Amino acid sequence: MQKGLKVATIGGGSSYTPELIEGFIKRYDEFPLTELWLVDIEEGKEKLEIVGNLAKRMIEKAELPIDVHLTLDREEALKDADFVTTQFRVGLLEARAKDERIPLKYNVLGQETNGPGGLFKGLRTVPVIVDICNDMERLCPDAWLINFTNPAGMVTEAVLRYTNIDKVVGLCNVPIGIEMGIAKLLDVDASRIHIDFAGLNHMVYGLDVYLDGESVKDRVIELLSDPENTSFVKNIDGIGWEPEFIRALDALTCPYHNYYYKSQDMLEKTKKEAEEKGTRAEVVLELEKELFELYKDPDLNIKPPQLEERGGAYYSDAAVRLITSIYNDKRDIQPVNTRNNGAIASIPNDSAVEISSVITKDGPKPLAIGDLPVAVRGLVQQIKSFERIGAEAAVNGDYDKAVLALTINPLTPSDSVAKAIIDEMMEAHKTHLPQFFN
Amino acid sequence: MQKGLKVATIGGGSSYTPELIEGFIKRYDEFPLTELWLVDIEEGKEKLEIVGNLAKRMIEKAELPIDVHLTLDREEALKDADFVTTQFRVGLLEARAKDERIPLKYNVLGQETNGPGGLFKGLRTVPVIVDICNDMERLCPDAWLINFTNPAGMVTEAVLRYTNIDKVVGLCNVPIGIEMGIAKLLDVDASRIHIDFAGLNHMVYGLDVYLDGESVKDRVIELLSDPENTSFVKNIDGIGWEPEFIRALDALTCPYHNYYYKSQDMLEKTKKEAEEKGTRAEVVLELEKELFELYKDPDLNIKPPQLEERGGAYYSDAAVRLITSIYNDKRDIQPVNTRNNGAIASIPNDSAVEISSVITKDGPKPLAIGDLPVAVRGLVQQIKSFERIGAEAAVNGDYDKAVLALTINPLTPSDSVAKAIIDEMMEAHKTHLPQFFN
Amino acid sequence: MQKGLKVATIGGGSSYTPELIEGFIKRYDEFPLTELWLVDIEEGKEKLEIVGNLAKRMIEKAELPIDVHLTLDREEALKDADFVTTQFRVGLLEARAKDERIPLKYNVLGQETNGPGGLFKGLRTVPVIVDICNDMERLCPDAWLINFTNPAGMVTEAVLRYTNIDKVVGLCNVPIGIEMGIAKLLDVDASRIHIDFAGLNHMVYGLDVYLDGESVKDRVIELLSDPENTSFVKNIDGIGWEPEFIRALDALTCPYHNYYYKSQDMLEKTKKEAEEKGTRAEVVLELEKELFELYKDPDLNIKPPQLEERGGAYYSDAAVRLITSIYNDKRDIQPVNTRNNGAIASIPNDSAVEISSVITKDGPKPLAIGDLPVAVRGLVQQIKSFERIGAEAAVNGDYDKAVLALTINPLTPSDSVAKAIIDEMMEAHKTHLPQFFN
Amino acid sequence: MQKGLKVATIGGGSSYTPELIEGFIKRYDEFPLTELWLVDIEEGKEKLEIVGNLAKRMIEKAELPIDVHLTLDREEALKDADFVTTQFRVGLLEARAKDERIPLKYNVLGQETNGPGGLFKGLRTVPVIVDICNDMERLCPDAWLINFTNPAGMVTEAVLRYTNIDKVVGLCNVPIGIEMGIAKLLDVDASRIHIDFAGLNHMVYGLDVYLDGESVKDRVIELLSDPENTSFVKNIDGIGWEPEFIRALDALTCPYHNYYYKSQDMLEKTKKEAEEKGTRAEVVLELEKELFELYKDPDLNIKPPQLEERGGAYYSDAAVRLITSIYNDKRDIQPVNTRNNGAIASIPNDSAVEISSVITKDGPKPLAIGDLPVAVRGLVQQIKSFERIGAEAAVNGDYDKAVLALTINPLTPSDSVAKAIIDEMMEAHKTHLPQFFN
Repeated sequence: MQKGLKVATIGGGSSYTPELIEGFIKRYDEFPLTELWLVDIEEGKEKLEIVGNLAKRMIEKAELPIDVHLTLDREEALKDADFVTTQFRVGLLEARAKDERIPLKYNVLGQETNGPGGLFKGLRTVPVIVDICNDMERLCPDAWLINFTNPAGMVTEAVLRYTNIDKVVGLCNVPIGIEMGIAKLLDVDASRIHIDFAGLNHMVYGLDVYLDGESVKDRVIELLSDPENTSFVKNIDGIGWEPEFIRALDALTCPYHNYYYKSQDMLEKTKKEAEEKGTRAEVVLELEKELFELYKDPDLNIKPPQLEERGGAYYSDAAVRLITSIYNDKRDIQPVNTRNNGAIASIPNDSAVEISSVITKDGPKPLAIGDLPVAVRGLVQQIKSFERIGAEAAVNGDYDKAVLALTINPLTPSDSVAKAIIDEMMEAHKTHLPQFFN
Repeated sequence: MQKGLKVATIGGGSSYTPELIEGFIKRYDEFPLTELWLVDIEEGKEKLEIVGNLAKRMIEKAELPIDVHLTLDREEALKDADFVTTQFRVGLLEARAKDERIPLKYNVLGQETNGPGGLFKGLRTVPVIVDICNDMERLCPDAWLINFTNPAGMVTEAVLRYTNIDKVVGLCNVPIGIEMGIAKLLDVDASRIHIDFAGLNHMVYGLDVYLDGESVKDRVIELLSDPENTSFVKNIDGIGWEPEFIRALDALTCPYHNYYYKSQDMLEKTKKEAEEKGTRAEVVLELEKELFELYKDPDLNIKPPQLEERGGAYYSDAAVRLITSIYNDKRDIQPVNTRNNGAIASIPNDSAVEISSVITKDGPKPLAIGDLPVAVRGLVQQIKSFERIGAEAAVNGDYDKAVLALTINPLTPSDSVAKAIIDEMMEAHKTHLPQFFN
Repeated sequence: MQKGLKVATIGGGSSYTPELIEGFIKRYDEFPLTELWLVDIEEGKEKLEIVGNLAKRMIEKAELPIDVHLTLDREEALKDADFVTTQFRVGLLEARAKDERIPLKYNVLGQETNGPGGLFKGLRTVPVIVDICNDMERLCPDAWLINFTNPAGMVTEAVLRYTNIDKVVGLCNVPIGIEMGIAKLLDVDASRIHIDFAGLNHMVYGLDVYLDGESVKDRVIELLSDPENTSFVKNIDGIGWEPEFIRALDALTCPYHNYYYKSQDMLEKTKKEAEEKGTRAEVVLELEKELFELYKDPDLNIKPPQLEERGGAYYSDAAVRLITSIYNDKRDIQPVNTRNNGAIASIPNDSAVEISSVITKDGPKPLAIGDLPVAVRGLVQQIKSFERIGAEAAVNGDYDKAVLALTINPLTPSDSVAKAIIDEMMEAHKTHLPQFFN
Repeated sequence: MQKGLKVATIGGGSSYTPELIEGFIKRYDEFPLTELWLVDIEEGKEKLEIVGNLAKRMIEKAELPIDVHLTLDREEALKDADFVTTQFRVGLLEARAKDERIPLKYNVLGQETNGPGGLFKGLRTVPVIVDICNDMERLCPDAWLINFTNPAGMVTEAVLRYTNIDKVVGLCNVPIGIEMGIAKLLDVDASRIHIDFAGLNHMVYGLDVYLDGESVKDRVIELLSDPENTSFVKNIDGIGWEPEFIRALDALTCPYHNYYYKSQDMLEKTKKEAEEKGTRAEVVLELEKELFELYKDPDLNIKPPQLEERGGAYYSDAAVRLITSIYNDKRDIQPVNTRNNGAIASIPNDSAVEISSVITKDGPKPLAIGDLPVAVRGLVQQIKSFERIGAEAAVNGDYDKAVLALTINPLTPSDSVAKAIIDEMMEAHKTHLPQFFN
């Protein structure tokens, strides 16, 4: 008799959990989950109860034999797990709010994967992920770690370089969002669209886009240069590209490219929004309160539609699609964060990249693209260096490396501003950065 | 109204053609072929008639609306084709017999892809392929060239380097034969076996082998070191590996590796066989005569089972599976000869490699493997160099380069022997090597 | 009888020419120059006369048998030359003033190798260099092209990619200036200092620095983090690094790194200077007027010391040292702009890099460094991409590529600002950008 | 006060020692050696005394203040050494004789760096070198290890991969022998010849050759294709190349290339010589006996001319020239075995290569060559793989890897022959291969 399938979800009290549950329900035929362990920490206990009970009601409604366990004991959850998913947030949204607010004082863009915000989310998160990996080595050495925790690029890089866990995939809903958005722009079903993705997390390019296998890149680029279409990725507002730029770039961008190719506009927009409606974390904090109020309703037994506003569109799809493909050795192609292994020539073989990969039981196998277009190679390399040095700073508690990482980030105007921001943020996040204060 | 699907098969008079026809019949649902043009040269007219009429009968029996055209006019056949397949043999089996006989006089292994035989088959074939590509550029620039003509590695390399045809795939039935053989050894259905192939044509390694997605490499290597199992690939006799060697190699070999890791034994075996039953070409010549006798039978309307003895096992499967996947943008994984594009680090990006690739309408996209195992990198590099310099010699009629290509081939014992063999073979093949005699 | 040594200097009317003359005089023993051809265009005729006559007086004073020719006929000058040096400025200093002024209106840093100024200097210069190379191919195919014309990185890249001239070296006085500056900081003779340079023109790093062969990198980095020492390179004011940044960077910077790691401060400083004393070009314009007044003095027969204020410190040394080493196959090590050839792993083999190289009669042979430090790889790659796409735009008159080049430049805040600046500058430089206005 | 210069020579009792002494005497002005420690093992005590006393007499005659110490205590010798040179032979010439004799029984070429002989010399030597490096780490961590012990390629690879000693250079007299030989062929002084060397130890190619800085490659290749000139490297008999081969190869070969491009002839020649005059080791054994008789003469106080017959031509020159250049940070160019560091693209960065390098106090810095010519890339890669896997087998006592290493060696005809030879040689060398017999 084969043992049942066990999934452990670290940060199980997240407002996203119903997404994941919906995913497991939808794909139960292909992925007959037996035990789902939602694990959280003491501070998240209340949320875990609320969302965990909703999860149970959802599964009950679906009439599926999945046991949902709620626990604060990570070891118990990890023991013999087949898949471990991570969606935790060290310091909660309050920490994210600081990540966003403080840099703006210095006129620097901040967000949870980019600039100072991305660095500090990494500095807080990486040591916890390393801990989890060390536990996994003992408790479930054959499990796959599916990481959704941001900054997914830096986190995946850290797992590859600083732990013994090889079976790790970083996942993001941006590529799937782009595919959906392009399908909508072209007014076709998303299943007919394929995109060759390559780059890094939140810095991924579409090197070509196909409709029924025929390249429609030129048509899509034409569409993308139309200001009407700048927000084609759900929940993400963009700013339109200059047609000359996007034509010459000759590749599809992701929404986060606005931070780099429209830094000034994005800074102004972000500052204005922060002033008028609060930063994204502050908005989400309110949204989450409402979500958890909804989740408490004992009659609710489906994923409430309001959750999609939260930013997690296609999240369940991306996540459970990946898990299902690994489990079933499906050998379909999905964009994931995995070891480069030579797929992109100018990125080191052992670094994490976000790239279209064949998903097998043996993990993702990236498709070789030769090299990135000349025009984007440098920016991608720079963000990769930021991620590597950030991960190193996080693991070793190395203050100098943190200053270096932020200085070489393209969103930072100087080493002095980098240092000033770091000093203020180190202080603000002190309790979650023990490695820097010993 | 969409135009129908047109395939042109160069060397249509080949005894293999019924294989291809069978493949088109089996997959008609997925690949609704309208016109099949079998084209051959004056010398092959009779065979073309015989095999072409069998083809017509096979299609009639299958009750499919495919028009089969027999022609000596290549231009007519190529015009607006969607796929061009090549299976011709310059100088026919008589030339192949010389490729095999002459080197044996010098105690050098000869075969149609390896050693002096491989070189001379390349020298005769490459100029014709280049011609076909030049025609295709004019007559069917969007068609895919599916090349089965040996030496498939050198030919694909030549197309990539010396023509403007980008849409080329080289195909071989060895990898599929290995998969079938391994499945049989493990006594499981072949659909449950996946192998990560990487290397060159007739020099391909299985870097890992999976049963239902789980690696069974160690088990398979154990099996391969058993002398009982040396001939697991259909129609190809092997010689058993020393267990220590194959364990330390830690990769699956292909039958042609016997030429390199068992040179001495293969030479003796080949000489013995040549003496006792004739060389392979001489055996096949007889076999073909019988086959064509069979083909003439006006009542025969299926592929005769005797054809499988000819060496073409799984050939139709490999060929039409590839064409169908391209046509339908299937995105399944098949081992093909395609541009490396960084998939294997130590081979140039623009060289042809044989590698597991995702088959899309936009062509094969190779899976990145990082690099070949240390132990095989050198031999693969050496054969790639042989193929490149051989292709160069063929295109330019460069005698010195021909000597160089053969001297660096691992089967050749010295530059002097290389030169002696080349001189004798140049003379023997004079009529088919005009580029060297002007 | 061997023919004498002939040098042709394009842009011979430059105020720098006395530097060069001094260099030839000092090293006459090693480089017995026979004919020096100073060539300029009609607009530069007056200056050519003035500086050319000073050159003649300098040589007369030195009592050397060097014939100085002044000419407006480039072909006559190039004919059978052994070395061609270029130091011309398309549009003269007036164009450079625009390069500097216009971007500042958009709050963008501009200088003759960086940002919009660098791009436009490239757009004006590259077509002229390509013309010169085409002439050289006909008139002096064996000559070495020694290019000092900025932007030296983009110009060298363009020569390597868009002409048939292989014998090209790009030269800059920044590395030698760094060596001199470090020697002064350490209070030792410059001959005792060696630096391993690698990177690009005006984006070069010192990977290690040696005193008498022993690494003193840590000591030098300590010194560089002292605000007292920020202007250690002659004539170039810097801004001090944060000690944490420079320690973690663990490499020596060049003065132009201030543009990237201190963008904000440099922008403010540049705007302030432009307001108070004029841009650099405007200052130099005045300086040059004075210099040419001095040069007119028929009693002047040496290089006037005021020239060093002009920015050309060590220029003669770098230039003639290079030429002498090539001529004499000296095999000493100098930092030059040359084909990468694998020396820096993450830069394409056929791109120009600035790197410590052995100078031989067969040209510079770069020392392999493996790869640049992780922290700098991205920025260097980005500038290389800027140079490549800028060169492409310049050669083809491709407006879209010009927008792309400027947008990916790290000094530009967005594609829209890039486009706005380009539109204004295209108009301003219209007469010198014929390739964009046909 | 600076401490004096100390050199420790492991295997000090070697017949080569007078070469080294002569070198130190000749270059004393540049390298003021204070203490020379000749160290050997118990079995070599007598020879150490004889050659050590000759060394003392040579130094006395030269009237130099160098103290020569003879010792069996390696630790005492290594303590605070500045340079450690190794020239030992595990198992003495008797072991070498077996390395040569046994493979011939199997019709396989054997020599102390190639084929089975090279492998077994490596298996015996690598563990000893690793031991010495471990001692150096404790006793003289700043010393340079100058290794002359063959197989120098495998040994240098092993030091780079399996020890913490970074300061290692492998040295060979073949490249200098080639330079001398070419100079003689061209009838010019050797100082006027420069060769760009790249490859591996005993597998090195001259990519270009210059006379006074001008390429004379074509002329030299013409000369090399003349059978008269096949033995241009002193003490090494060659066999002439076919002109077509060497012209198309377009690179200079080293004498050991005869083993690969003339395997058959070399095998016959070696067997004939072994039969008629004994193998090389057997010949040298006799020669050494005579040499040691000579060395005993208390009136002898110079290097006896007979030593040059022993095979060590230019040995002192190569060795002390290298040491002197390191010591004085000379920055001249010498061919040495050092870490590739990207100099040759198709060889891993951290592998040892033999390549023209700038010799600095910080060690050799290889010149980037891009990649080896297509024709030689494979063979070089194959030998590198042989060296790597051989070193791994030696360090770990891994029998399977030893079989793999020998099977992939181009001189071995099959895995079975490889295994048979290994079994016989393991037995023969049992006492010197403890790592395989525990």
